[in-house]
Amino acid sequence: MNAPSNARLPTVDASIHPRGGLDILSRAEVAELADASAGGMHDLLRRCALAVLTSGSASDDPRAAQELYPDFDIQVHQQDRGVRIDLHHAPAMAFVDGEIIRGVAELLAAVVRDLAYRAIELGEGGSRDLSSSEGITDSVFGLLRNARVLEPVEPNLVVCWGGHSINREEYLYTKEVGYELGLRGLDICTGCGPGAMKGPMKGATIAHAKQRKRRMRYIGVTEPGIIAAESPNPIVNHLVIMPDIEKRLEAFVRLGHGIIVFPGGVGTAEEILYLLGILLREENRGVPFPLVLTGPTSAAPYFEQIDRFIRLTLGDGAAERYEIVIGDPVEAARLMADGIRKVRGHRIAQRDSFFFNWSINIPLEFQRPFDPTHEAMAGLDLHQGRLAHELAADLRRAFSGIVAGNVKEEGLRRIEERGPFEIHGDPDMMASLDALLRAFVEQRRMKIAGDYKPCYRVVA
Amino acid sequence: MNAPSNARLPTVDASIHPRGGLDILSRAEVAELADASAGGMHDLLRRCALAVLTSGSASDDPRAAQELYPDFDIQVHQQDRGVRIDLHHAPAMAFVDGEIIRGVAELLAAVVRDLAYRAIELGEGGSRDLSSSEGITDSVFGLLRNARVLEPVEPNLVVCWGGHSINREEYLYTKEVGYELGLRGLDICTGCGPGAMKGPMKGATIAHAKQRKRRMRYIGVTEPGIIAAESPNPIVNHLVIMPDIEKRLEAFVRLGHGIIVFPGGVGTAEEILYLLGILLREENRGVPFPLVLTGPTSAAPYFEQIDRFIRLTLGDGAAERYEIVIGDPVEAARLMADGIRKVRGHRIAQRDSFFFNWSINIPLEFQRPFDPTHEAMAGLDLHQGRLAHELAADLRRAFSGIVAGNVKEEGLRRIEERGPFEIHGDPDMMASLDALLRAFVEQRRMKIAGDYKPCYRVVA
Amino acid sequence: MNAPSNARLPTVDASIHPRGGLDILSRAEVAELADASAGGMHDLLRRCALAVLTSGSASDDPRAAQELYPDFDIQVHQQDRGVRIDLHHAPAMAFVDGEIIRGVAELLAAVVRDLAYRAIELGEGGSRDLSSSEGITDSVFGLLRNARVLEPVEPNLVVCWGGHSINREEYLYTKEVGYELGLRGLDICTGCGPGAMKGPMKGATIAHAKQRKRRMRYIGVTEPGIIAAESPNPIVNHLVIMPDIEKRLEAFVRLGHGIIVFPGGVGTAEEILYLLGILLREENRGVPFPLVLTGPTSAAPYFEQIDRFIRLTLGDGAAERYEIVIGDPVEAARLMADGIRKVRGHRIAQRDSFFFNWSINIPLEFQRPFDPTHEAMAGLDLHQGRLAHELAADLRRAFSGIVAGNVKEEGLRRIEERGPFEIHGDPDMMASLDALLRAFVEQRRMKIAGDYKPCYRVVA
Amino acid sequence: MNAPSNARLPTVDASIHPRGGLDILSRAEVAELADASAGGMHDLLRRCALAVLTSGSASDDPRAAQELYPDFDIQVHQQDRGVRIDLHHAPAMAFVDGEIIRGVAELLAAVVRDLAYRAIELGEGGSRDLSSSEGITDSVFGLLRNARVLEPVEPNLVVCWGGHSINREEYLYTKEVGYELGLRGLDICTGCGPGAMKGPMKGATIAHAKQRKRRMRYIGVTEPGIIAAESPNPIVNHLVIMPDIEKRLEAFVRLGHGIIVFPGGVGTAEEILYLLGILLREENRGVPFPLVLTGPTSAAPYFEQIDRFIRLTLGDGAAERYEIVIGDPVEAARLMADGIRKVRGHRIAQRDSFFFNWSINIPLEFQRPFDPTHEAMAGLDLHQGRLAHELAADLRRAFSGIVAGNVKEEGLRRIEERGPFEIHGDPDMMASLDALLRAFVEQRRMKIAGDYKPCYRVVA
Repeated sequence: MNAPSNARLPTVDASIHPRGGLDILSRAEVAELADASAGGMHDLLRRCALAVLTSGSASDDPRAAQELYPDFDIQVHQQDRGVRIDLHHAPAMAFVDGEIIRGVAELLAAVVRDLAYRAIELGEGGSRDLSSSEGITDSVFGLLRNARVLEPVEPNLVVCWGGHSINREEYLYTKEVGYELGLRGLDICTGCGPGAMKGPMKGATIAHAKQRKRRMRYIGVTEPGIIAAESPNPIVNHLVIMPDIEKRLEAFVRLGHGIIVFPGGVGTAEEILYLLGILLREENRGVPFPLVLTGPTSAAPYFEQIDRFIRLTLGDGAAERYEIVIGDPVEAARLMADGIRKVRGHRIAQRDSFFFNWSINIPLEFQRPFDPTHEAMAGLDLHQGRLAHELAADLRRAFSGIVAGNVKEEGLRRIEERGPFEIHGDPDMMASLDALLRAFVEQRRMKIAGDYKPCYRVVA
Repeated sequence: MNAPSNARLPTVDASIHPRGGLDILSRAEVAELADASAGGMHDLLRRCALAVLTSGSASDDPRAAQELYPDFDIQVHQQDRGVRIDLHHAPAMAFVDGEIIRGVAELLAAVVRDLAYRAIELGEGGSRDLSSSEGITDSVFGLLRNARVLEPVEPNLVVCWGGHSINREEYLYTKEVGYELGLRGLDICTGCGPGAMKGPMKGATIAHAKQRKRRMRYIGVTEPGIIAAESPNPIVNHLVIMPDIEKRLEAFVRLGHGIIVFPGGVGTAEEILYLLGILLREENRGVPFPLVLTGPTSAAPYFEQIDRFIRLTLGDGAAERYEIVIGDPVEAARLMADGIRKVRGHRIAQRDSFFFNWSINIPLEFQRPFDPTHEAMAGLDLHQGRLAHELAADLRRAFSGIVAGNVKEEGLRRIEERGPFEIHGDPDMMASLDALLRAFVEQRRMKIAGDYKPCYRVVA
Repeated sequence: MNAPSNARLPTVDASIHPRGGLDILSRAEVAELADASAGGMHDLLRRCALAVLTSGSASDDPRAAQELYPDFDIQVHQQDRGVRIDLHHAPAMAFVDGEIIRGVAELLAAVVRDLAYRAIELGEGGSRDLSSSEGITDSVFGLLRNARVLEPVEPNLVVCWGGHSINREEYLYTKEVGYELGLRGLDICTGCGPGAMKGPMKGATIAHAKQRKRRMRYIGVTEPGIIAAESPNPIVNHLVIMPDIEKRLEAFVRLGHGIIVFPGGVGTAEEILYLLGILLREENRGVPFPLVLTGPTSAAPYFEQIDRFIRLTLGDGAAERYEIVIGDPVEAARLMADGIRKVRGHRIAQRDSFFFNWSINIPLEFQRPFDPTHEAMAGLDLHQGRLAHELAADLRRAFSGIVAGNVKEEGLRRIEERGPFEIHGDPDMMASLDALLRAFVEQRRMKIAGDYKPCYRVVA
Repeated sequence: MNAPSNARLPTVDASIHPRGGLDILSRAEVAELADASAGGMHDLLRRCALAVLTSGSASDDPRAAQELYPDFDIQVHQQDRGVRIDLHHAPAMAFVDGEIIRGVAELLAAVVRDLAYRAIELGEGGSRDLSSSEGITDSVFGLLRNARVLEPVEPNLVVCWGGHSINREEYLYTKEVGYELGLRGLDICTGCGPGAMKGPMKGATIAHAKQRKRRMRYIGVTEPGIIAAESPNPIVNHLVIMPDIEKRLEAFVRLGHGIIVFPGGVGTAEEILYLLGILLREENRGVPFPLVLTGPTSAAPYFEQIDRFIRLTLGDGAAERYEIVIGDPVEAARLMADGIRKVRGHRIAQRDSFFFNWSINIPLEFQRPFDPTHEAMAGLDLHQGRLAHELAADLRRAFSGIVAGNVKEEGLRRIEERGPFEIHGDPDMMASLDALLRAFVEQRRMKIAGDYKPCYRVVA
């Protein structure tokens, strides 16, 4: 709440006895857990734990936390009675009069739980088949169930996507939408960082209090690389750490009963293409999935550009999968509530589970990461006339590669070494892509050093 | 949340079937209730209900609500199965897709409940003896019990006093103190309006969520004249409407286990004198009652002036009853938590109730209103050497009268007609009072048209 | 459980701090309570408390308890924090390792609560009008609400009437009916003694456990004269002590959603006539009220005689108000469940409360006790052609008087002094009454010393 | 409740959607479950399910159920939303007006859950090492956790052992002990059949109701061969089916915080020796484990003989591990409550879990079944001077073999083929064993056709 800015911050040593799943382990499980957390997993655990312990602090800079608490350490110990988490030189801000804040202790236990699950169940000795689509889906299910976020309750979970560094007007808008969702009894799931990941939860909190809702779920789904950068906001009461971005995206799609997309950077645009790549598949034609793109009036241009780009590349049919709502939180929430009612009806008709969307088809190519090498980029096929969902998938990859070529360390190096990517595609489609990226730069949604210069060339 | 500013606002007609006490009434009680709400109580009921239905709106101006919803009406109907509240042309902002927000419905039921209790139990036909001190205390107890805020739980209720139109820095400070109180498991009771009455509740809400507290009490204690001016903030989950300011002050003192005073106007200064007038009584010497005056660094002068005035008039001994904490929310919360632990020990030792402070002695003169006529003012005796609590009581009255003479309609008229009040007192004490009032004017805590001009003269 | 038979039984001294209503009293209320319990109410309180403290003991003889615990005493003390009940020389069987059994403490608090309510609210200083029908109904409502048995839950309360000293076969049958009622989610209300008042609760307990019902209500409605004779069985978890038999009967009729009558003595026959006297009134024609008379095959003659008597005296129409089920617990429970569904529909249609039957009309003559003097008996009018409900009322009175004349001390004395009662009535109706009484004697349901000899003569 | 005795009983077809663990399965898990239940596990499932569906019926004869419901079948179906259990021609007694009794549905789900766990987790593809002591303990832990009977609550679980066909006096005594345990807040775990496995639960149910206990655990731990013979009594609210008798015994020892042994047959004597064989190990010397042998006065000879046999064979030191209480349910319950307090202290001191006794050492030889062949019997070494716990283990085996040779089909055949077992042992020890068995026969605790004739001879 009020961390002083001077160098060495106050710290606390403490032992935590976590509950809620970590309290009923066998001796063998505890031993495995202690081993894993002392071994290869230790540094990751240390960084994630520090992120949780500084949850709610003003700063978003993860390295700051590392520098401010250089002596912090965490150890997981076995004792017959269960697991004991020892903290050394932990940030005092997570404690009140020497006692750890209960919610922080819960998030800390979630970190240990999920990293352990990954090390033990999804590691070498584990029994999951991570090379098949079914196996990957199964491991996503396993992680979520182990994190106790699968519950046989009425469908009411809205996933909110959007940027973590949006402007104040956009942030306030996400709060208002969250408020209207909360008034309608809906729960919130986000990537659990700041910005569009925090606003909807804050708004929903007030609405849930006004509606006297008793069991509220503010689910944060993150990944190790992200959580260290984006401390979970303090409202999150269920935290899940997925092993990588692909499993995290699959978790959003299978957990949520609908998705709201707020303005964001290119990452948000990529997510929209990822989702359309799935929803436009023939297998998913009949699966209802409310998708609402919304923002304040000032964000209208952002969504117009995205809409135009989608219609140009994937056709007007693709645009039927989403609704754009500008400057109307009530309408956005109503559309989502209506959509979720349809999802409910469909699940019942299909005898599908309420808590995990088994019906939706996510092919292996969406579950495996895309590495934007020159070869991979040259293999993309961006021509009109392809099936919309295949084109969507390749567009997403092109997008991902271009962003990497423009701003990511590895991508910049590749361009430097071997020149621009060669992409096979229709010139008008590429022009459209180019226009979209330039607009993002202008709106300051993509940070570029110097002028924007395409890192690719079109090969017809 | 987003009330448009144009003239005629959207409204809704609805029927509410309240629960929680209003759901198990006898036919005779329902009939009495319907009668009372249709008769003399109707206009009061209408205004209070409107305040609740616009709870959380941006505007604090009660007349605005009356003007924006001129056709609003409320009727309480008897039907064998219980009570039905009919709303006509009610503000649409209290509804979601045609359904009233549950928390608003609860506050509405509280309004009906308390006005009815007052009309039936404390009215002419009632059995209470409102002329004796015991009888008044009993009626306070009866109202609070009927409102279900008396619960046999651990002592943890902090009353927060302070101004409703404090500046932003002071407001943020009240939130931080509320946050620190909430982290320590304490509940909040305020006058339930904006400013210092809302900040502590907001801060505590976040802290309670982080501590995973299940049963949180945000008790708003108001009175009919106030609620219409200050809509209850949306966090309040227990609302009590006391019949007048004296019973409201007694409710604060007997309900709370400690009081925190934030910066405020002259009203806040009066409240401090009221409380000291009680605490300095010989009968209350042994009763622990944590009293903390706190604000941000910028508010230090305010508390210094008050402290100086108290020491000059009532002696240094009086200052032992409170602690002043400047710019340190953690320290303020810790002092309060420690103080409440002592209150708990004392209640157990005295076999006194946890939920109602029977031990503290409040004499009849504090329970009856003070009307500042020239005669009453001339009857005050502001000389050194009097018993501190008696002097405190008279100082409070002088204060009250002077404020009336400066800014209140009735007081201004009296001064105009009969000249300044004559007050019998030591010149140095009067000078000190004068200095305090001037400081308030300078700090813009008291609104004066033109220069400040004393409305009294000292008669040695 | 295992009270030894030797003279002086082990006793315990203890202090109880009751909860659930007695824990939030004002100082004045506690003082009144302490006064009442030390004054005129003391002996009654002592006897009722002793009955509760020996609840579940083998013996049904109230005097036994008085003799076994001659030094037992109870005092209610005021202490600011609430009420303290002091027990001296209390039966050790109510304690486990020095701690009072929690359920016994609750029943004890109920005794204090109800006797106090009666003394304070219904006593001389109280505000109830006990001379009007509405006033009496209101006081019944007030007592039940104060005892917290009025709850806005779904209609599911079955009142069970029947004898307290039925034979084993009949007792087992009441258990089976209770079991079948419990399987259907129904709660039980009885007179809370042994026999037909215990069996249904026992059966329902097992069924509720099998159905994993969480909130079960086993309501015992008794009166001071009865509780001392019939200790509440240990299953009762809500105990209410009504001031007299008339208010107790009204409580049954207004609380219950249906009534099951098991075999019993003449008292049970009287209760049936009381109920028919109400149900046959024109005002109650449209009020659904499931009434099932049921018993094992061996009890068939009992119900046949009652049925025959009713048809002869009140006409076949009267028999439409009840169903007789012999040897079929499932059918009895099904009829009751069906009937209660109809009650539910009717309450909704009439907007009547679920928890108190305001609709049913109980005239003042049923609310006032009948004292069988020679004059009162001579005033009865037992002729064909009268309105059925009036005749039912007079038949009940005749019944009551004849029983008194046969077995009760006061009645026997009157007959001895002034000769047999003179009753004006049709000879065939009187013959039928006579036959019914003789049958009861034969079935050993009415204990007569020597041969049965009518204590009345018919005056045509 | 009231099954008619005629041949073909009423049946019902129904589908059950189980909850509590079976409701959040992955598609792969559901498929495995459906496969297993249709394959090798099907007959076992069918018999266990039938036992549960006839729970509470008068008859204890499992074949009766099979014959009375010859067409009964059960199938487990996969549907995306979860598991569906289809019942065909199921006993109507498990249903109320077409709806299955909720508790029965829960027990049915437990059957499916445990058989599936065994087939999937402990089967060929499973990951457990069932050849090591640790692996077996781990699988016991896994089964119990999967059955949700491991809870981090205060130690309060009393295991009750004893015969399933004890006489009425002994049965009533088990109820009284259960009642006294229940009054002291203790929960009950038994083998879940009739007799001494039902009485303590019944008694505790009444006591728990009187103490207003909210969460009561009546845990039944059974095995497939037993459940078909002994339907779980209707009070059981947690049912666990362990794969075999050894794991079931280990479950009792590790789950319970103390054990009460009521009179029983030779099986009960064997259990006592099993437990002493563990408790007398040097490794378990410091582990507190309250063990109370108790029965009514008429059962005194039974315990005297057992006590004498133990002292003669294992020495007086062995008798320090248990207490014998005759005819005093209060004393038995008090000893157990005191013992459990010591267990609690020990667990805390050792940082051992409250819900699973990891500390106690159970060697592999106790976890593996003993098959009484002539060779195995000849390998026993029953001489004075051996370590008490080794001798106890061999005595248990000798016992087991002799019983088999006397009454079990397989054992009788072996004796017939190869003559009496040859046992190496001290003659006095063998004489003592012989005397004990003869006493059991006399007390009708062991059913022998014709005279008792030893099936072994001693080889010095």
